[in-house]
Amino acid sequence: MSERQQLHLNLFIHDTGHHEASWRLPESDPRADLDLGFHQRLARIAEDAKFDSVFLADSPALWGDPARRPSARLEPTVLLAALAASTTRIGLIATASTSYNEPYNLARRFASLDHLSGGRAGWNIVTTAGDAAARNFGLDGQPLHRTRYERAAEFLEVSAKLWDSWADDALVGDKDAGVHALPDRVRPAGHHGRFFRVEGALNVRRSPQGHPLLVQAGSSEDGKEFAARWAEAVFTAQPTLEEGQAFYADVKRRAVALGRDPEHVKILPGIVPVIGDTEAEARELEAELDRLIRPEYAREQLAALLKVEPERLAFDAQLPDDLPTEDDVEGSKSRYTLIVELARRENLTVRQLIGRLGGGRGHRTFTGTPVQVADTIQHWFEHGAADGFNVMPAVLPSGLEAFVAKVLPILRERGLFRTDYTGRTLREHYGLPRPGDRYALASAVPASV
Amino acid sequence: MSERQQLHLNLFIHDTGHHEASWRLPESDPRADLDLGFHQRLARIAEDAKFDSVFLADSPALWGDPARRPSARLEPTVLLAALAASTTRIGLIATASTSYNEPYNLARRFASLDHLSGGRAGWNIVTTAGDAAARNFGLDGQPLHRTRYERAAEFLEVSAKLWDSWADDALVGDKDAGVHALPDRVRPAGHHGRFFRVEGALNVRRSPQGHPLLVQAGSSEDGKEFAARWAEAVFTAQPTLEEGQAFYADVKRRAVALGRDPEHVKILPGIVPVIGDTEAEARELEAELDRLIRPEYAREQLAALLKVEPERLAFDAQLPDDLPTEDDVEGSKSRYTLIVELARRENLTVRQLIGRLGGGRGHRTFTGTPVQVADTIQHWFEHGAADGFNVMPAVLPSGLEAFVAKVLPILRERGLFRTDYTGRTLREHYGLPRPGDRYALASAVPASV
Ligand SMILES: Cc1cc2nc3c(=O)[nH]c(=O)nc-3n(C[C@H](O)[C@H](O)[C@H](O)COP(=O)(O)O)c2cc1C
Ligand SMILES: Cc1cc2nc3c(=O)[nH]c(=O)nc-3n(C[C@H](O)[C@H](O)[C@H](O)COP(=O)(O)O)c2cc1C
Repeated sequence: MSERQQLHLNLFIHDTGHHEASWRLPESDPRADLDLGFHQRLARIAEDAKFDSVFLADSPALWGDPARRPSARLEPTVLLAALAASTTRIGLIATASTSYNEPYNLARRFASLDHLSGGRAGWNIVTTAGDAAARNFGLDGQPLHRTRYERAAEFLEVSAKLWDSWADDALVGDKDAGVHALPDRVRPAGHHGRFFRVEGALNVRRSPQGHPLLVQAGSSEDGKEFAARWAEAVFTAQPTLEEGQAFYADVKRRAVALGRDPEHVKILPGIVPVIGDTEAEARELEAELDRLIRPEYAREQLAALLKVEPERLAFDAQLPDDLPTEDDVEGSKSRYTLIVELARRENLTVRQLIGRLGGGRGHRTFTGTPVQVADTIQHWFEHGAADGFNVMPAVLPSGLEAFVAKVLPILRERGLFRTDYTGRTLREHYGLPRPGDRYALASAVPASV
Repeated sequence: MSERQQLHLNLFIHDTGHHEASWRLPESDPRADLDLGFHQRLARIAEDAKFDSVFLADSPALWGDPARRPSARLEPTVLLAALAASTTRIGLIATASTSYNEPYNLARRFASLDHLSGGRAGWNIVTTAGDAAARNFGLDGQPLHRTRYERAAEFLEVSAKLWDSWADDALVGDKDAGVHALPDRVRPAGHHGRFFRVEGALNVRRSPQGHPLLVQAGSSEDGKEFAARWAEAVFTAQPTLEEGQAFYADVKRRAVALGRDPEHVKILPGIVPVIGDTEAEARELEAELDRLIRPEYAREQLAALLKVEPERLAFDAQLPDDLPTEDDVEGSKSRYTLIVELARRENLTVRQLIGRLGGGRGHRTFTGTPVQVADTIQHWFEHGAADGFNVMPAVLPSGLEAFVAKVLPILRERGLFRTDYTGRTLREHYGLPRPGDRYALASAVPASV
């Protein structure tokens, strides 16, 4: 069976579930967000089910009202290192910001995670929207959207130089001669750019995957251009098949224009599966969760995102007509547009919009029976909208368990999903090549010490 | 038995051992430095032996000649997170630099590690000497020694505000009312200082230990002042009992002068145990290791540290007379003085000095039988030079195994070391209090979002 005939599945772990009210269910532990055992349990379920990877979102700021839902976040590289020691095969993808990190520190943490896990590390590269994060790092507000992506591009250049600063064959371990590594196979990064100057070599050897798997999740014009240049997998929120198809074609086309193989950029839309044995049962589960949303919290966040006063959003009216355009937004451009278009297309009231966002935050909610969910997955996969999916259960772990127990067997019966891992590394799971040893054959330059 | 009658032991993990030639022994794996399994094995031996903690040194730069010895380092917070998942009781102390990190990111990683490990995280706070690290972070060379310590002091202030930004009782998890945490028990850091502006609250709740255990290892005047203010445990290199006693008294005196309880600053000198069943056997092991040192590598590093041309250091002559003084050194002041004084006091040739540094890098090497090693430990502990020790085996794991199998039983027989853990957290192992919830009773200020 060819690679393209099998889809890829990533589990997006998000405390007690992606539905903002999931923590209020009787089954949920309100302290799960900081509990290692909870995350180990999820990662092991996903690994037993042969998912390609687990994934953690992140931002270096307290985000939203702490009353509303769990708002604490274990730092993802640290949490995934603990999960690396608790699993053996599943990939581990951490989000980290290029706007609020230094390349030497971050490239090193990902190289360390790749060594620790035997080649299972991935980096979801984000530029971090919002003033709250900026104000935790000495700034008055967020840098311009364009500037954030320019910094991101240079950040990746530096990171690649650091990951490649040791040739794959630099370590010789010659005990008799007393030569541990060959100094002329270790080269300084020697990077002097607009945002960064990084002189030395990384103090971690080239890792099992060469580079961690590079993942990206920005969908603005700048975001898609960045994805086409750097991303090997793209997480995206696509509310309809048609939009999914357009996005898929757009990113692949941009990658080809940059000389890349379109098979080497996997498109993974988010899906929020809400599964019931009957359609009515699934809808009832969804309705139960929506009833637990406190709309006054959600309205405040929606107003901030739309840049209007909360009082201008009447619960039972549609959105005001005079909203800013994407060009006026310096935060998360594509998210802004997605929400406004969703509301306008479906003539949603503010209350209805809040329900839709509270569940899947703009991602496609697949509510139905296991066969219906499997059908939709297959349809998207076979009609040019997805190479796989970012699975975002509304409730964790029960929504994941339902997906694994009921939907995966159908996908496997149809030959669409693996029955066992065939590779060892995250790149092997996704069918992506290991980056070549760029400097291995370059002329020798002595290492900086 | 009172707390003071029991000593504390920390295992300093340093790839295949603290002797620079340890990797050349037949038993050593030259790739151990990046191998999770190797580190898990060491941590489990130390935990089975009831050590208080394991510890990892660090610098964000490739340090030294890659030919000479293993020079790669897994980033410590990430490695210790993996070890947290592989152990249950032992403390986990990671070195991290205040000069090349941002407080929000680092405070968060330590809070995350403390949650993950159930209260076992410690931070060895360093200011990082040397130009190589500075040049990986956009600087031309290292900031002044004084400036680095000023930044460190403010870094700790900010970190404490972040760790305390959630009151211990902020989380209520009230499912019926839909209130996850009490917003008025979450306060922004609101820090505006000379080096840092950090506005928001941490996005991690207050951790099991309140703050990670704070450890420090600088021994210059500025370093000791910093330790007296912030450190709860101090690693130090003390080549003789008299110097150890003077340092011990000095740091405790400074702590008292700042209003602290001297029992709350544990002094832990390094020891390099080289153990044989007879004294002759121990000396032979030491000599075998020293024969494996390649002196031309070591001379280059020594020359850099002393700020002289390598050719001026003749192997069979003593150090030149006209070396700089500590005041001229902007890097590691106390280390510089320690080495020069060691050479002068014992009239060592360059070759002899290199042998001494290659073994213990200035730390006290205890070479002898198990009883002799235990005697020396007891003598230092009972004569005001140590509250415990930073154990630095010349060869790992065999030197650790010998220490555990042969020296620990003697210390236990004498009632000097625990037979089992009595506490759960790292602070409990060291008999140190959990910092109080400083802001818990302060007036409510709404959280930044
Ligand atoms: C599935 C998914 C996950 C995301 N996770 C994060 C995240 O963890 N942190 C973050 O700052 N942004 C995250 N984003 C947002 C984007 O990465 C990006 O920062 C945002 O869309 C702004 O970029 P844009 O303006 O190019 O769309 C995520 C987006 C998607 C679709
Ligand atoms: C046991 C021990 C471990 C140390 N580990 C580190 C380390 O990992 N990284 C580092 O930069 N400095 C380390 N140091 C050095 C000191 O923390 C400090 O940075 C150095 O001595 C310079 O400070 P000073 O000038 O105050 O002595 C260590 C020192 C000792 C005694």
